[in-house]
Amino acid sequence: MKCLILAAGKGSRLRRRAESKPLLALAGVPLIERAIRSAREAGADRFVVVTGHRAQAVQDFLHGLSARLSVPIETVHNPDWEHSENGRSVLAARTRLDDGESFLLLMADHLVEPALIGDLLAAGVPQGGLALAVDGDLANPLVDPDDVTRVRRDGERIVAIGKGLATYDGFDTGVFLCTPALFDALERAGEEGESSLSAAVHRLAAEGQARAVEVRGRFWCDVDDEAALARAEQALFDRLRGKTADGPVARWFNRPLSIRLSRWLVRTAVTPNQVSLFSFALSLLAAGLFFLPGWAALAAAGVLAQLASILDGCDGEIARLKFRQSDYGGWLDAVLDRYADAFLLFGLTWHAWRETAWDGALVAGFLAIIGSFLLSYTADKYDGRMRARGGARFRLGRDVRVFVILVGALLDQALAVLWLIALVMNAETLRRLLVCRDA
Amino acid sequence: MKCLILAAGKGSRLRRRAESKPLLALAGVPLIERAIRSAREAGADRFVVVTGHRAQAVQDFLHGLSARLSVPIETVHNPDWEHSENGRSVLAARTRLDDGESFLLLMADHLVEPALIGDLLAAGVPQGGLALAVDGDLANPLVDPDDVTRVRRDGERIVAIGKGLATYDGFDTGVFLCTPALFDALERAGEEGESSLSAAVHRLAAEGQARAVEVRGRFWCDVDDEAALARAEQALFDRLRGKTADGPVARWFNRPLSIRLSRWLVRTAVTPNQVSLFSFALSLLAAGLFFLPGWAALAAAGVLAQLASILDGCDGEIARLKFRQSDYGGWLDAVLDRYADAFLLFGLTWHAWRETAWDGALVAGFLAIIGSFLLSYTADKYDGRMRARGGARFRLGRDVRVFVILVGALLDQALAVLWLIALVMNAETLRRLLVCRDA
Repeated sequence: MKCLILAAGKGSRLRRRAESKPLLALAGVPLIERAIRSAREAGADRFVVVTGHRAQAVQDFLHGLSARLSVPIETVHNPDWEHSENGRSVLAARTRLDDGESFLLLMADHLVEPALIGDLLAAGVPQGGLALAVDGDLANPLVDPDDVTRVRRDGERIVAIGKGLATYDGFDTGVFLCTPALFDALERAGEEGESSLSAAVHRLAAEGQARAVEVRGRFWCDVDDEAALARAEQALFDRLRGKTADGPVARWFNRPLSIRLSRWLVRTAVTPNQVSLFSFALSLLAAGLFFLPGWAALAAAGVLAQLASILDGCDGEIARLKFRQSDYGGWLDAVLDRYADAFLLFGLTWHAWRETAWDGALVAGFLAIIGSFLLSYTADKYDGRMRARGGARFRLGRDVRVFVILVGALLDQALAVLWLIALVMNAETLRRLLVCRDA
Repeated sequence: MKCLILAAGKGSRLRRRAESKPLLALAGVPLIERAIRSAREAGADRFVVVTGHRAQAVQDFLHGLSARLSVPIETVHNPDWEHSENGRSVLAARTRLDDGESFLLLMADHLVEPALIGDLLAAGVPQGGLALAVDGDLANPLVDPDDVTRVRRDGERIVAIGKGLATYDGFDTGVFLCTPALFDALERAGEEGESSLSAAVHRLAAEGQARAVEVRGRFWCDVDDEAALARAEQALFDRLRGKTADGPVARWFNRPLSIRLSRWLVRTAVTPNQVSLFSFALSLLAAGLFFLPGWAALAAAGVLAQLASILDGCDGEIARLKFRQSDYGGWLDAVLDRYADAFLLFGLTWHAWRETAWDGALVAGFLAIIGSFLLSYTADKYDGRMRARGGARFRLGRDVRVFVILVGALLDQALAVLWLIALVMNAETLRRLLVCRDA
């Protein structure tokens, strides 16, 4: 699937922030790179980008990106970019795309999640026409009602499109699936003095050749001015919550803090795996402190462990924000978490043993370590089975464990915490084994 | 897919062993149940069984089996079973099967692995003809050369079939994929006084309507007399080796012993999960012995742990032999193994600590426990990644760990064993993390 991206505009309402709007970085990744990565995740494998303002800078960036992603990216310059609307940019790419096959069309200044593009691709395009992803959620808080292009539909046919529509039932997301018929429609509109993409869509709609594909609930937004940029950035960070398999402590305590940290980290060159390793090092340091006698060391170790646990959320967040998610990264993080857990609990065990001078503390510590481990060991299988049954998923994981250690350390109750973890973690593992038995 | 199974014969050469040949149990499972379960695994979902000798007993058994497996099984009696050959049994089921669609045809006294049936189904059947699974391995040790039906082929066409063929290039496995054309061919053969299935196949072959599907290397055998029965049973047990992901100790030491045990266990009502639990209990007992002082307790615990490890192979073996493999069973076994490992190592740690009166033994024990755990935790992911790269798979697992504990216990070297396990297991985990990094 080919993908055409319009990146010619100046973005005058944002000019102060970057020399070129497509190169404006949001959470560390330029807008044009976000568009290309989203389309690639949805299945596009060849890109044509139309440049205009600051063409050379955009072209240089795309040259590097093409190598980084191992994906072909051509650029086409639209010399007319300053004196015409965006339809002219589409026409500039005609010779690269007019091979009879359909292609995706995106705007460089729109953030779009891959699933939205996937919905459009799945719906398909009418022969000799185009399909537009339309958001029917008229209350979408990410949409600027004064600036958005409105759409009126009859079933899945578009009957009218334009910024000034008084009656409308959806918004133009800027994501199209086109056939080469679009080029002819653009030529016709041009002959009548209209050079906007909407004018061509309007003509195809009049012929019943413009399909609307509903994408309500999917994430998209148009980054047009400073306010929209701030909204979009906030939305990217907000999307990091809730979706993951967070436990209660992660959701209500760690995640809000780690997102703040990630907000800053995405602007640096720090990689997710580096964050995983640094968080692991902090945990080891905390474990080391546990070996020291006295409450002060215990409390400091508990706080440090909790800090490491918060930081441990950042690797995944940065990975998601920067399209750096990898199977290996997730695995490395999980393995390091297991080591960190074990070292923390061993340190706590040693502390409790030395402070109480009771060998039973070693037994409590052993049971806490094995229980914590088994809980992680059974998590995937248990989740899979519960999901298959449509049951609710209760997460008793690392976030809770570390938080309990923190509280216990502050209260100087190392031994009690070990017994608590030993009891709860092993009981939950046993419960999982029993609950899944009938499946 | 419907499946017809012929179970009318008397099996006079086996009569002493069971009142009815189809009900003869091999490794705890009657032959007719093996045929039905194999076909079901390959995709059959409706069964018609032709009975003759001891029809009532077979029918009663199938009634219960149908309920147990939740699969429809009809029976048809062939009153003529004693005075005609097996083609007449096929004709007896005609009214149940003659709906224009193809169906599988198996012999109740043939052992067949599901993959062989799958090969036949994948190859398909010629319109108006039949397809026969043919084994081209003329040196197959499971075949009785005096009794087998021989096949001569021209490409994938069968050109001759019969017991007495002088020139042949394959054996009739007794697994057919038929169209209703077979019934007409049987009628015609009957009119000429021949009532065997081979006679009908011969007629279809003469018309170029009999396809041979090569299944060389797949497991099948005909259980016709006492010698064949013994061969078949041995083959079932032999198949338990080598295929699994056994480590070196499991392969060369534990497996031969556990197979002997399983040979006996399959004749009882013991379930695989019961074996898993019993083996776990033995490990706990061994762990308890480690807490006692002195070499005798240490050595006894080591031996007991090794026994538990051997027995731990039986659950999977019984499950395979009795078609009892389940996702849950495998998971339960893995979780219990992790607990058993941890308790054994904790016991050994305690022993070493008390004998040496050195607190460093606790550190060694902790590292051994965490290392063993991480090795199991990373095993699936590592194996998956190595398989994806086509690399060889090296198994350093539980079998080796328990064997090292045994050797260490016999040599009274508890502490050295802990350090060895701690070092090797953690180093291997680290190696896995590094090796997989580039993938």
